[in-house]
Amino acid sequence: MSYGRTFPLWRAAAGDHWSAYTRHAFVEGLRDGSLSRAAFLHYLVQDYLFLVQFARAWALAVTKADTIEDMRICAAITRALIDEEMRLHVGDCAEEGIDENTLFAAEERVGNLAYTRFVLDAGQGGDMLDLLAALAPCALGYGEIGLRLKASAGATPYSGWIDTYAGADYQAGCADIGALIDRVAARRLGPDPQSSPRWPDLCRTFTTATRLEVGFWDMGLDP
Amino acid sequence: MSYGRTFPLWRAAAGDHWSAYTRHAFVEGLRDGSLSRAAFLHYLVQDYLFLVQFARAWALAVTKADTIEDMRICAAITRALIDEEMRLHVGDCAEEGIDENTLFAAEERVGNLAYTRFVLDAGQGGDMLDLLAALAPCALGYGEIGLRLKASAGATPYSGWIDTYAGADYQAGCADIGALIDRVAARRLGPDPQSSPRWPDLCRTFTTATRLEVGFWDMGLDP
Amino acid sequence: MSYGRTFPLWRAAAGDHWSAYTRHAFVEGLRDGSLSRAAFLHYLVQDYLFLVQFARAWALAVTKADTIEDMRICAAITRALIDEEMRLHVGDCAEEGIDENTLFAAEERVGNLAYTRFVLDAGQGGDMLDLLAALAPCALGYGEIGLRLKASAGATPYSGWIDTYAGADYQAGCADIGALIDRVAARRLGPDPQSSPRWPDLCRTFTTATRLEVGFWDMGLDP
Amino acid sequence: MSYGRTFPLWRAAAGDHWSAYTRHAFVEGLRDGSLSRAAFLHYLVQDYLFLVQFARAWALAVTKADTIEDMRICAAITRALIDEEMRLHVGDCAEEGIDENTLFAAEERVGNLAYTRFVLDAGQGGDMLDLLAALAPCALGYGEIGLRLKASAGATPYSGWIDTYAGADYQAGCADIGALIDRVAARRLGPDPQSSPRWPDLCRTFTTATRLEVGFWDMGLDP
Repeated sequence: MSYGRTFPLWRAAAGDHWSAYTRHAFVEGLRDGSLSRAAFLHYLVQDYLFLVQFARAWALAVTKADTIEDMRICAAITRALIDEEMRLHVGDCAEEGIDENTLFAAEERVGNLAYTRFVLDAGQGGDMLDLLAALAPCALGYGEIGLRLKASAGATPYSGWIDTYAGADYQAGCADIGALIDRVAARRLGPDPQSSPRWPDLCRTFTTATRLEVGFWDMGLDP
Repeated sequence: MSYGRTFPLWRAAAGDHWSAYTRHAFVEGLRDGSLSRAAFLHYLVQDYLFLVQFARAWALAVTKADTIEDMRICAAITRALIDEEMRLHVGDCAEEGIDENTLFAAEERVGNLAYTRFVLDAGQGGDMLDLLAALAPCALGYGEIGLRLKASAGATPYSGWIDTYAGADYQAGCADIGALIDRVAARRLGPDPQSSPRWPDLCRTFTTATRLEVGFWDMGLDP
Repeated sequence: MSYGRTFPLWRAAAGDHWSAYTRHAFVEGLRDGSLSRAAFLHYLVQDYLFLVQFARAWALAVTKADTIEDMRICAAITRALIDEEMRLHVGDCAEEGIDENTLFAAEERVGNLAYTRFVLDAGQGGDMLDLLAALAPCALGYGEIGLRLKASAGATPYSGWIDTYAGADYQAGCADIGALIDRVAARRLGPDPQSSPRWPDLCRTFTTATRLEVGFWDMGLDP
Repeated sequence: MSYGRTFPLWRAAAGDHWSAYTRHAFVEGLRDGSLSRAAFLHYLVQDYLFLVQFARAWALAVTKADTIEDMRICAAITRALIDEEMRLHVGDCAEEGIDENTLFAAEERVGNLAYTRFVLDAGQGGDMLDLLAALAPCALGYGEIGLRLKASAGATPYSGWIDTYAGADYQAGCADIGALIDRVAARRLGPDPQSSPRWPDLCRTFTTATRLEVGFWDMGLDP
């Protein structure tokens, strides 16, 4: 899946950081089942905290959208993160005896703080497109990882995780986000986004967020 | 309906401004049907623009909430504003030949700019409770107006408007918002909110927003 | 003075609103001395409250600047507003027996709320350039008004006001702001800003702020 | 120095994290001169980037202040960071052949991103007091470190750094900030801040920022 025209260009600009993220040892451990349960649970707790902040960032996108259609999409993503994606984590953690209040009160690791607050500040300091460049590596990268693992995974205890991100609902969301990015890029940068003087900064924001995704997986392997 | 413990105190602090808002000539015109269609349509267009900003303000509340439960409520309100309340306006306006793009592009009147941007800035400059004090007059005042008109309206072409705000869905939303305000007040001000040094400022924010509601109805009568 | 390349284009886009603002009856009353003292004092109180919010808006610009040079300019303007321009108001009002705490606690009129919060939200919802488009009519319009009145005013009790805005310090600030706008426009829109799809929105923001300046003078004549 | 009444309470709440920060091996290396020049330069580059964000955070404080006096202090700190503290770094780096544009464009390390964006988001998500709780460990901790090193340092090449933070100007700024925190705490929490339900959250914010200071020194030792 390419998820629109802009995302593949940003992904290419991220160079090796992109594969360091999407083919990280943590991801391979999900695929072949070699990831330890402890590491996965540690990740789930931090990822729950991550999603709290990510929901805040998509809500911030509602406040920065230029059209009612874009507001609608960002509000729907915010709701889906809170009501659907986070509930999966709550369910998985509940099976392990960790309730939602415990999750919400857990201490955020540095790599988690860095990533989430960088995204929020990219939005506060810039406009809708700056925010989307920071949100894209997570939102669309998970879609790409999900599809790749679905196509190649063997027997793994993490098939539930893979199915979530490879699933039709998540993939439809990725297509919506890719189209949203293209629309906003056209409105903010014009018909030839790559010729805009903002282009290198947007690529840099995307790349920084990608580097921080690598750090997030690293953290997952270091419970 | 009292919509919790905090709202009645703020309402009392607003003094005569509250009745100037909730018993405004525009409201009485909705009740007895004497409001002109032109004034109502003018109001609908400005109120659509208002709801765009109000949805942004509730999205801002998602970013300022302290708990996942509060985030969930604010995200649900944001979505309901965009997907339900605004669609009513779109439907009513479509009957009159005004489509949604025209609505979205209409020019905001000064009274509209003043109210909506004041609410947003109350949130940006302060915390969740400052934002809620600015949001409450609209959200809960419409609930109160809806119930009063429902109980007392005669034959009026505006029964659809009245039914929306008197209806079970809107009233349940008001109850949720009243409870949200009480929770946040307890968390930010302690068990005796009225003794907090912030109390006068919160009353002032609520009163300013109420004054701006009066100005909004005035604008409705001045197409 | 043209204050750079971008400002004259925005000013032209504002059409008749620009002259309605810069040649408003309030301005003419300053020039020929026919403005009543009561109206001037009423204006001074509201303008003090305006400058509080304007200082907040330039501080917001510090948080949205792309370069250290731009941060430096916006921080210097913030400080000058608080330490210099506001002190003039405090001095003038003190002569009339109004102290600074009374000024700070005065009630903002609707036209004041509308203008200031619109500017702040233009910054929060957009990027540095959106914020500058909302700030420009006040910052540079006062420079233009000051120069015109200085060149044409007769004996007027308001020569102090005129000298402030026609003075070398204020004019140097206007030149800095004009150059800042040009730099940011080049960085965010490229070498041909008028061909950017953002151009009409920026002109609209500038025009709305100009309309709100007209409303501010209207308010000054209606104590 | 105690820098007011609130800061010592927050510092105590941070427990061992406070000494891990203020007596970090990096600090001891500044004191006894054992810190390598390479580590110091690496730190200077990252600290320059840190100060860019810190200036943005104090500018954000201008937008969230409740009184003109508080706005004045925050604007003065913003200006001092940009015009004085950052110029020291520029000067030191220039001696090593690193110019300011290179500094501004350097890549922020994860520990730097985490700390600065956490502070900014504490302000965006909360109110002035939440922001000050995140700003305090750096602003006042450096004052404390400066005084301790000044009193105990032997011959060290880093005496310039020590003199800056032990100096009268920086210490006067710390006293202002401590008094500012006390005033804001009184206005937002009442006469007994520790009894406020917000108190634990404020201590947590302060402690998280302190942990992130430890991470910043760690980063300094890992060029």
